[in-house]
Amino acid sequence: MTDIATPTLQLDPDRLFPIDPGVRALARELYEPVADAPIYSPHGHVDPALLLANEPFGDPAELLITPDHYVLRLLHAVGVGLGDLGRPRLDGRSEPAPDGREIWRILCRNWHIFAGTPVRYWLESQLVEIFGLTARPSEATADQLYDELSELLLTEEFRPRPLFDRFKIKVLATTDDPADDLAAHRALAEDPTFHGRVLPTFRADAYLDPSAAGWSDRLRRLSEAAGTSTDRYTGLIEALRARRRYFAEHGCTATDTSPADTWGEPLPDAEAERIHAAGLAGTVSAAEAVAYRRNLFYQLAAMSADDGLVMQLHPGVHRSHHAPSLAAYGTDAGHDLPAVGGYTEPLRRILNDFGTDPTFRLVLFTVDETTFSREIAPLAGFYPSVYAGAPWWFLDTPAAILRYRAAVTDSTGFYKTSGFIDDTRAFLSIPARHDMSRRTDAAFLAELVATHQLEPAEAQAIARDLVSTIPIDVFRLPTE
Amino acid sequence: MTDIATPTLQLDPDRLFPIDPGVRALARELYEPVADAPIYSPHGHVDPALLLANEPFGDPAELLITPDHYVLRLLHAVGVGLGDLGRPRLDGRSEPAPDGREIWRILCRNWHIFAGTPVRYWLESQLVEIFGLTARPSEATADQLYDELSELLLTEEFRPRPLFDRFKIKVLATTDDPADDLAAHRALAEDPTFHGRVLPTFRADAYLDPSAAGWSDRLRRLSEAAGTSTDRYTGLIEALRARRRYFAEHGCTATDTSPADTWGEPLPDAEAERIHAAGLAGTVSAAEAVAYRRNLFYQLAAMSADDGLVMQLHPGVHRSHHAPSLAAYGTDAGHDLPAVGGYTEPLRRILNDFGTDPTFRLVLFTVDETTFSREIAPLAGFYPSVYAGAPWWFLDTPAAILRYRAAVTDSTGFYKTSGFIDDTRAFLSIPARHDMSRRTDAAFLAELVATHQLEPAEAQAIARDLVSTIPIDVFRLPTE
Amino acid sequence: MTDIATPTLQLDPDRLFPIDPGVRALARELYEPVADAPIYSPHGHVDPALLLANEPFGDPAELLITPDHYVLRLLHAVGVGLGDLGRPRLDGRSEPAPDGREIWRILCRNWHIFAGTPVRYWLESQLVEIFGLTARPSEATADQLYDELSELLLTEEFRPRPLFDRFKIKVLATTDDPADDLAAHRALAEDPTFHGRVLPTFRADAYLDPSAAGWSDRLRRLSEAAGTSTDRYTGLIEALRARRRYFAEHGCTATDTSPADTWGEPLPDAEAERIHAAGLAGTVSAAEAVAYRRNLFYQLAAMSADDGLVMQLHPGVHRSHHAPSLAAYGTDAGHDLPAVGGYTEPLRRILNDFGTDPTFRLVLFTVDETTFSREIAPLAGFYPSVYAGAPWWFLDTPAAILRYRAAVTDSTGFYKTSGFIDDTRAFLSIPARHDMSRRTDAAFLAELVATHQLEPAEAQAIARDLVSTIPIDVFRLPTE
Repeated sequence: MTDIATPTLQLDPDRLFPIDPGVRALARELYEPVADAPIYSPHGHVDPALLLANEPFGDPAELLITPDHYVLRLLHAVGVGLGDLGRPRLDGRSEPAPDGREIWRILCRNWHIFAGTPVRYWLESQLVEIFGLTARPSEATADQLYDELSELLLTEEFRPRPLFDRFKIKVLATTDDPADDLAAHRALAEDPTFHGRVLPTFRADAYLDPSAAGWSDRLRRLSEAAGTSTDRYTGLIEALRARRRYFAEHGCTATDTSPADTWGEPLPDAEAERIHAAGLAGTVSAAEAVAYRRNLFYQLAAMSADDGLVMQLHPGVHRSHHAPSLAAYGTDAGHDLPAVGGYTEPLRRILNDFGTDPTFRLVLFTVDETTFSREIAPLAGFYPSVYAGAPWWFLDTPAAILRYRAAVTDSTGFYKTSGFIDDTRAFLSIPARHDMSRRTDAAFLAELVATHQLEPAEAQAIARDLVSTIPIDVFRLPTE
Repeated sequence: MTDIATPTLQLDPDRLFPIDPGVRALARELYEPVADAPIYSPHGHVDPALLLANEPFGDPAELLITPDHYVLRLLHAVGVGLGDLGRPRLDGRSEPAPDGREIWRILCRNWHIFAGTPVRYWLESQLVEIFGLTARPSEATADQLYDELSELLLTEEFRPRPLFDRFKIKVLATTDDPADDLAAHRALAEDPTFHGRVLPTFRADAYLDPSAAGWSDRLRRLSEAAGTSTDRYTGLIEALRARRRYFAEHGCTATDTSPADTWGEPLPDAEAERIHAAGLAGTVSAAEAVAYRRNLFYQLAAMSADDGLVMQLHPGVHRSHHAPSLAAYGTDAGHDLPAVGGYTEPLRRILNDFGTDPTFRLVLFTVDETTFSREIAPLAGFYPSVYAGAPWWFLDTPAAILRYRAAVTDSTGFYKTSGFIDDTRAFLSIPARHDMSRRTDAAFLAELVATHQLEPAEAQAIARDLVSTIPIDVFRLPTE
Repeated sequence: MTDIATPTLQLDPDRLFPIDPGVRALARELYEPVADAPIYSPHGHVDPALLLANEPFGDPAELLITPDHYVLRLLHAVGVGLGDLGRPRLDGRSEPAPDGREIWRILCRNWHIFAGTPVRYWLESQLVEIFGLTARPSEATADQLYDELSELLLTEEFRPRPLFDRFKIKVLATTDDPADDLAAHRALAEDPTFHGRVLPTFRADAYLDPSAAGWSDRLRRLSEAAGTSTDRYTGLIEALRARRRYFAEHGCTATDTSPADTWGEPLPDAEAERIHAAGLAGTVSAAEAVAYRRNLFYQLAAMSADDGLVMQLHPGVHRSHHAPSLAAYGTDAGHDLPAVGGYTEPLRRILNDFGTDPTFRLVLFTVDETTFSREIAPLAGFYPSVYAGAPWWFLDTPAAILRYRAAVTDSTGFYKTSGFIDDTRAFLSIPARHDMSRRTDAAFLAELVATHQLEPAEAQAIARDLVSTIPIDVFRLPTE
């Protein structure tokens, strides 16, 4: 791109607020009381072992680039190989492991491609707010920034636990396999020197598709964890129930699932049993696998209606679109892509059976924003069990959050939305993401006040509730 | 939610206008000349008997809550039972009929859930503009408001007819079954003390699906009304034609239909006759029922091309999504939900046959806003018979109306849109809904002026036309 | 419509800029350096013979109305017959050829129907900026404008070549059939008095569907042009390759294709050969035709991966929706309509095979704006070969361009977008269209700066790159 001067990196205190000075002042007033409110993070992918070990983070690239598929995808999109960004090859071919400093230089050299994206916003927030750096990334400043970051990351205050405290994270939910023994969660809960709450989330997706590679192996591991045979369908159901109890005993309040579609249709036990056997025998047909998956999805809803674990639904993603990248670098490498949504018809059976059950709770997320006004908000606007999940993944951006609020508020208001989720693997980005959400919600509320659709006092109350009572209620979080 | 002070309820004169002071002033100038213009309401569900009888309205809950599915759905969504809101059970089970005051308290206690929704906007408008009340609804003010409203509703000026005059309703269209004798419409037309125009609308949806429960009974009633046997398909066609003539003689200018999809495909008469017989015999297959329905939809278009009744299309709704609520409380209980739209391909045959016929007119509405820029505006932007219907149902909100104008104006301008429809069962909400639309259109036009895309004089003319010549032309309304 | 005064026609220098005075000033600063930048027009439909002959344009209607389907469609939508607008009948029926002045009067009389549309914006820009006229079109001014325009069009400076220079068009790409001998392109390239670059674009759509009328005739013509028999499938492939080489030798850098869907799936050669023979024999089935078309689409991608011609994809259009208008007036008569998009799944095979190939390049356009945030931006945000094409056809409007930037920037930034394309048959509208795009991009960037999401210097650089380095890079344009 055209060369530009490299100004100092700084965060304007009014960023993301509306432009009109009066409305900007309103937004500031709405934002300030929640700017430093504790963070409830009810959905994400941070590894609990990170907090348990509390070791220094690695080099800056290993911390901020290689594990973050948001960053990877945009660098890949301009032609940088995933291997050059530090992703190890899984297919046996050898590729020289790049140096962290070289990866960092790639990021800085390509800083312009992130202009206007939320990834840029989050990275800048982290550099300034967490590390106090002031050089704007560019080819010229890459080494200086790398050195400064590397030095800071060796200090005590930049280890995971001090950051956890500094971020004011009150609750952090992880995402976990039902067969997981939750050792890290248990150790953290028992550690008298750690005061946060790190809750597991039950995600059973790996057990839903009897035609998937490795299904029977996973069933065997689950069987061992649950102490119940999973050779039969009824055994699998029992094992899942047992593991849900185990998770709940260790603080879990929610499940997560990300099915290929959202159809939930129960099968007669005998039919499920028959397909289960075919799955173990490796003779299951595509149609049988779909029927089995939709049945298990229905059964998971039924279990939630029974044990009260909040059911999160993150559907509609084409996973690992680029087969060569999948083979070489595995999953979560930046090429998961949004699919067309669909909720109203597919969820009819589950909502007819459990939609008004006060124990059952279903939070609907989407990567297809056309569903906000057409499906998700209308569903949340009738069914007491349904909540409109916050904008997710490709849509957790300042612009898309405003579109989300504009699209869902009409049909379901604020109190049937979920509160923000960060859904991140990048631990250091958590405060920037929540702050972005708070600023954007303040901006939206300020516009409603400025157009006389809301009283200032009520807007203030809503801004507060959106970061406290709402996520606590929706996800049934502990408050001590 | 967090407690907030209860400010006085008041309506800002600049509500819904753009924020920038200059553009706000422009919007005000565009709005003022149309603020008190007469209301043409070419599509709605008010019962004409209400105006004929002119009895006092019942208690506040019976007037403002129980019959309004917009209000019901949001209260239901936070866990209030439909029975607790006054909906009688249809399934024989007994449930204590709740007191109107108790229902009103539920509404006031849950006032915060309506924040930012159009339902709140309409209710506040009614309380202030129609009743002159100033207490903001809350648990603390519920009884006071209930008492004030109850007292006012007993006075002469709050009966239906004085309100009709006060609202300046020039034309009010109802929605009526073809077998209806239109007695109330006739009596109103003949009543020398009533000066408004209340026009019937011909809605034949109940006769389109030969697999629907009660189809043959309805055919029998229609046969009696039309004086023509409906035992055969050709007889049904004749009966529908006869009833259209009868409706037209009583002031009807339009039909309405809300099919499951918008495919219109003619069948050979012999095939239609065969399926008709199967329908009466109860042996019709699902595929035959669809073919029969799509044929009748086509025939209704052909009739419109013949008799000039404007064809309104309100498709794409999953009716009564929650079977238990349907069984207990019947239709229109708040759980109709939007479906995915589809117009361009399905309407191809009808538009090829009648799309340039000056007698034929088709107004397309949607609950799927993705169709505004992709289907509806492009169709209205080519076919002289097609008009882009105003935002409807889940989309008749300040935010969605702005999105609608932004999405359709590019491809079809203002003069191929329909003018606002309120589509309401809630008689008292009619002025607030039309006022919302006038304000929002003024806001949209003001932005075009402020960005130099439109001259002020032309914007003024458009604002006027949108509430007068446009709906009159599109719906072929009488002007005396 | 209501009569309005006819103000003088003038273009505000701040048109399309944001309303807030501060942001408007920012937008102005971003716009000014690019306001007069040269135009790169990498996709359009101007006839190169126009520039070769350099004859005076015909009368104003022939220049501005009859050939422009944007104008035709809106006049048709209010009931003007296509024949009355100068479209000749193709079906043998005789219709009096209307006088240019009469057509011009129709446009002026219906000026109000264009209010708020981009068509109005472009026409006004042309009248003022190119012709220096000041009367606002209306019934009263129609004749005066017609006379003024007619007189100007006879002068030397309003011939095609002086306008080409005045418009500062650096590169103009046309759209051409593979069998075309490119005589006009060659003559222009060899003409020492013409200094512009007019590049052909290879569009092979006419050869993809073996069930289409005239397919074998077209194959014969292609065979003659390529000097290779197309009697067999392998011959067709060879002929297409030969013509691509020929096009590239004459400056072509890109292909264009507008398939019914975007599925690309290779067939075994023997199967393709079999269907090819069936196509020539007239015995091909619908399913075979689809398979053959999807295979050829895949082969075109493979050829692009080989020869580096940039592949433009303009899919998802229902062509010639109104059969009677097609029969009477032919294609491009204003009744092509948008279809529902779909890219992520259909393109999976092509992107798996060529998506990271540095030679391969795919620019995705759409008429379904729901695909911007859900499909196009995420694909461009991962695959190095994929670029997010500028808003096209129904969406190349100020409002839709802002929605496009808001929808795609989050997932793919600015540097994986294509730069503006005008896609126009209306030569005189080229500057107005590019200017509209530059103003709108400046407005978008100014908002990012005003909300502190972008530094002013970087916004300036992006504004510049969007009209120069980006289209040059994406379309591999010559810069001399």
